[in-house]
Amino acid sequence: MNIGLDMMGGDFSPLETVRGVQLYLKESTSSTLLWLVGDENQIRPLLQEYAIPAESVRIVHASQVIEMNEHPTKALKEKQQSSIAIGYRLLAAGKMDAFISAGNTGAMLVGALYGLKPIEGIQRPTISTVLPKENGKTGVLLDVGLNADCKPENLHQFAILGSLYAQHILGIPQPRVGLLNIGEEEGKGNILTQAAYPLLKAESRIHFIGNIEGRDLLIDKADVMVCEGFTGNVILKLAESLHGIARNQKIDSEYFDRFDFEYYGGTPLLGVTKPVIIGHGISKSRSFLNMFRLAQKMLETDLLGKMKELFLS
Amino acid sequence: MNIGLDMMGGDFSPLETVRGVQLYLKESTSSTLLWLVGDENQIRPLLQEYAIPAESVRIVHASQVIEMNEHPTKALKEKQQSSIAIGYRLLAAGKMDAFISAGNTGAMLVGALYGLKPIEGIQRPTISTVLPKENGKTGVLLDVGLNADCKPENLHQFAILGSLYAQHILGIPQPRVGLLNIGEEEGKGNILTQAAYPLLKAESRIHFIGNIEGRDLLIDKADVMVCEGFTGNVILKLAESLHGIARNQKIDSEYFDRFDFEYYGGTPLLGVTKPVIIGHGISKSRSFLNMFRLAQKMLETDLLGKMKELFLS
Repeated sequence: MNIGLDMMGGDFSPLETVRGVQLYLKESTSSTLLWLVGDENQIRPLLQEYAIPAESVRIVHASQVIEMNEHPTKALKEKQQSSIAIGYRLLAAGKMDAFISAGNTGAMLVGALYGLKPIEGIQRPTISTVLPKENGKTGVLLDVGLNADCKPENLHQFAILGSLYAQHILGIPQPRVGLLNIGEEEGKGNILTQAAYPLLKAESRIHFIGNIEGRDLLIDKADVMVCEGFTGNVILKLAESLHGIARNQKIDSEYFDRFDFEYYGGTPLLGVTKPVIIGHGISKSRSFLNMFRLAQKMLETDLLGKMKELFLS
Repeated sequence: MNIGLDMMGGDFSPLETVRGVQLYLKESTSSTLLWLVGDENQIRPLLQEYAIPAESVRIVHASQVIEMNEHPTKALKEKQQSSIAIGYRLLAAGKMDAFISAGNTGAMLVGALYGLKPIEGIQRPTISTVLPKENGKTGVLLDVGLNADCKPENLHQFAILGSLYAQHILGIPQPRVGLLNIGEEEGKGNILTQAAYPLLKAESRIHFIGNIEGRDLLIDKADVMVCEGFTGNVILKLAESLHGIARNQKIDSEYFDRFDFEYYGGTPLLGVTKPVIIGHGISKSRSFLNMFRLAQKMLETDLLGKMKELFLS
């Protein structure tokens, strides 16, 4: 398989991207070829320094970089030679099978929405996060910010996408899908969740367990937690902050350590035709390693093929 | 002043309500008369057992109780002799100056919305919660569930109500008001927050500091955090769950202890013409003490008078 990485993405690139490549190649037993997109002059010496085997990587020069604070659409249009723009072209052309970047999140999203197609039948691609459960397990929350305003059908589709992700990537055989809401009983909620509930209830392709509430997010009640992107993004950022708070409070806790989102690598963009993984700006080598692992797993399990199949059926 | 308490409200009543009365009367130096509404046969022996001075309380017999799981509107209509129904009648008649209950939350809200008037100019009353800040301070989050779907003008009014509450009850001279959003810059967000931002920005009666994000909720960035009731309720319940999680994880932390919402007593219903405080079902004596303190403070500072004034101007 061919996995592409934006070598210039993230606050600590290209040093940490190179170190991530090193970690991944050390452990990988698959015949993966890594496509490294970025400024050749910066990358080559580092690849040498970190003794990256030449046969495992293909360097693709990119003379431009989209900076973190640039306007996504404008930057993508104007910087055709940026690592993100080139990466998406290679992905669309089928040279790469997956593309990873910890660069400008907006540009990664815009690039995917314009450069790739949504899976047939999917109205709105989505991004998710994993949430550490108090008992050691892990759940998926989606959407976490790509879709700030949603229709009931969007939540319905997120439920299916999240369920497939939990099943194939997290290895949960029959994921319990919960609708994030402000009351337990059917009929509770705002206009959106009241309308989404019957759609989820009638959906035979998921195991819907009903409404869940804020108090259930960190306990092992649902494996897939569905909401619109506004609430999801607030939860994601609140959850991310818990790690720093625990550290500031000098709390030594394995549980709150798991809120260090660096640990999880990046979030996949679900609903587009190719695997795209978007990393945190603060990604370090371990995050890139985890993003490579995720891309590999998405390809090995043919997650997107399964999504296509389900949405055609 | 005359403060009323629903003696039958809460999972541990009337024992814990009586114990709360005892705690409050012990510390109170004001000439407060407590109106205790509930089943006389249950209350009288307990008042005697806890040596509550007869001159400090007035017992109002209520032959019915609205149970926690009853349908609010139906129960209020059918149980005219319930402690909540009687309490609201006494409040509306001016016998009591404030009314406290840890009973059926829905019934408390319905009772207030039908039995009391909203303050002139206020479209939607709101409920708030306090959130412990990581540096020891405290902020106000609102709405936390009364208004699951909001218009921009509702958020605008919540900002003003929350600001007055922070100023007079929490003692913060010029409360920083933040709009909870999914991006820092003006123009970010969902349809609601994009439309609410300019209203808050143009509002001279508050100190608006712009957007805040999920990561800012527990740090000392804004004193008043404004959102619609769906997201607010999810945050409230997630925050409440942190205390139990920390305890389960055997984390000994003063900070996470502050997420024990019993500590704060109840939440005031803001925007109606009289002080109404709604307690948690699990309220114990200390919660009732704190609710008495809050009612007293709301009366002493004439918070509602200040709200009326501001909305008339």
